Amino acid sequence: MKTYLDCIPCFFKQALFAARAAVDNEETIKEVLDRVGVLVSEIPMYNSPPETGREIYRIVREVTGVDDPFAALKAESIKTVLALYPQFKQRVEASDDPLESAVRLAIAGNVIDFGANPDFQLEEEIQETLQLEPVINDCEAFKQNLETAQNILYIGDNAGETVLDRILIETMARPVTYVVRERPIINDATMEDAIKSGLDEVADIVSSGWDGPGVSLKGGSEAFLTHYEKADLVISKGQGNYETLSGEQRPIFYLLKAKCPVIARDLGVNKGDTVIKYALA
Amino acid sequence: MKTYLDCIPCFFKQALFAARAAVDNEETIKEVLDRVGVLVSEIPMYNSPPETGREIYRIVREVTGVDDPFAALKAESIKTVLALYPQFKQRVEASDDPLESAVRLAIAGNVIDFGANPDFQLEEEIQETLQLEPVINDCEAFKQNLETAQNILYIGDNAGETVLDRILIETMARPVTYVVRERPIINDATMEDAIKSGLDEVADIVSSGWDGPGVSLKGGSEAFLTHYEKADLVISKGQGNYETLSGEQRPIFYLLKAKCPVIARDLGVNKGDTVIKYALA
Repeated sequence: MKTYLDCIPCFFKQALFAARAAVDNEETIKEVLDRVGVLVSEIPMYNSPPETGREIYRIVREVTGVDDPFAALKAESIKTVLALYPQFKQRVEASDDPLESAVRLAIAGNVIDFGANPDFQLEEEIQETLQLEPVINDCEAFKQNLETAQNILYIGDNAGETVLDRILIETMARPVTYVVRERPIINDATMEDAIKSGLDEVADIVSSGWDGPGVSLKGGSEAFLTHYEKADLVISKGQGNYETLSGEQRPIFYLLKAKCPVIARDLGVNKGDTVIKYALA
Repeated sequence: MKTYLDCIPCFFKQALFAARAAVDNEETIKEVLDRVGVLVSEIPMYNSPPETGREIYRIVREVTGVDDPFAALKAESIKTVLALYPQFKQRVEASDDPLESAVRLAIAGNVIDFGANPDFQLEEEIQETLQLEPVINDCEAFKQNLETAQNILYIGDNAGETVLDRILIETMARPVTYVVRERPIINDATMEDAIKSGLDEVADIVSSGWDGPGVSLKGGSEAFLTHYEKADLVISKGQGNYETLSGEQRPIFYLLKAKCPVIARDLGVNKGDTVIKYALA
């Protein structure tokens, strides 16, 4: 997905939020915003927003000296969702359609997002999102594809959400490679976060090789690209992965909650809607 | 009021909104944002936000070549509220306390604001805001000051709101000088807008001499400064005037709806609250 003009004010909102998470010093935070200001004229609108997000978080790191401003928030999210794991696991197993329930639960986990939606109440929002009927619902196609899938690539998004991804992976009961970010970026899941969430027990975990809040085929690791090529089912979680993958020439299932109005418009849905979208190319 | 860090993303939101009102060309709009980006590092945080707002609208004018992007929206607002004038006028006259009703109505008119709150439904929002109990309510002090006032300076805010200011001025029945912006800025009322609203029939209208979305004692016209000095009652409508006048060493009545979280926090109220605030200095 290209960068829209509306993304630009939001880049500043995200830079401010990240800089505040890193330091408590108005001058330092202002310096982050100054440098993001200079960046604006260098943003190619054909780039995906996560490519710019990557630059913004680089500036936050350089100016504040803090490498992972969201470390504590990520740990808290994982802890909170791990505590909910037994309840959700049981709910999926007891449902009439465990697979669809698990897909919806994995989407509900996508409420976690410090980049685009800092003010959320984790458990309440997961519960609320679980009630939503996906506005695009290609779950039947997902089930069909899953029947014969032998190499599933599951591209993760946020830390905490990872625990609900684990429930979906357990429910699919197929070989899965789970993709994490190369290094900390916003609250996106890294190798460490995936392991803390128990994903290493149910999937092979590989790094995307890229340090933006999405994936990159240009900047991706060989391990990621190899899996991406050979996968017969690709699951892409969340907005950042959608933004960097949409338009790619291969079938992908996007599971996400449209938390940002620009992405909602790009998908043809309303902000707040959930989608299980099967994009063929 | 100083500039807060949260104002910076909002400057881009406002620049984008104004540039879009001016032109329908993505490259031109991006150029506006590029130039606002360069401006960020030059924003002194001790400046009031309207001082930066002034620079932003200058950039919008220069890049787009459009002097008054909100001309049509302003005309529409005035027309809409003029059509409501008889109904509101009658409501004020029929109320138990016409003066307080007129003050509240003038505050309700402050919902109109294309700078900070582009998505409003005019009549509904006025009606809703009229139901709100002002969270700071110095209306008794206002009435007392009004009893002996001979030189009232009434600093206007948005076009359309002007029609409800007129009802308050009629209800006060005292000599009033009404202050408008020197030139078009966002949807703020200029001389032309004030006249279209019928304010010339009930007040002397003077220009503030300044082209920012507020007033400036440094950049003000002599006419404005003379009235400001000699006034025994100053009424300041809306956020922009509050932002530029708060902290001044003279008694001022601020009538406004806190539409922005930063101003709400500065006033010690919640976003959406209305206030009749008597600031002694």
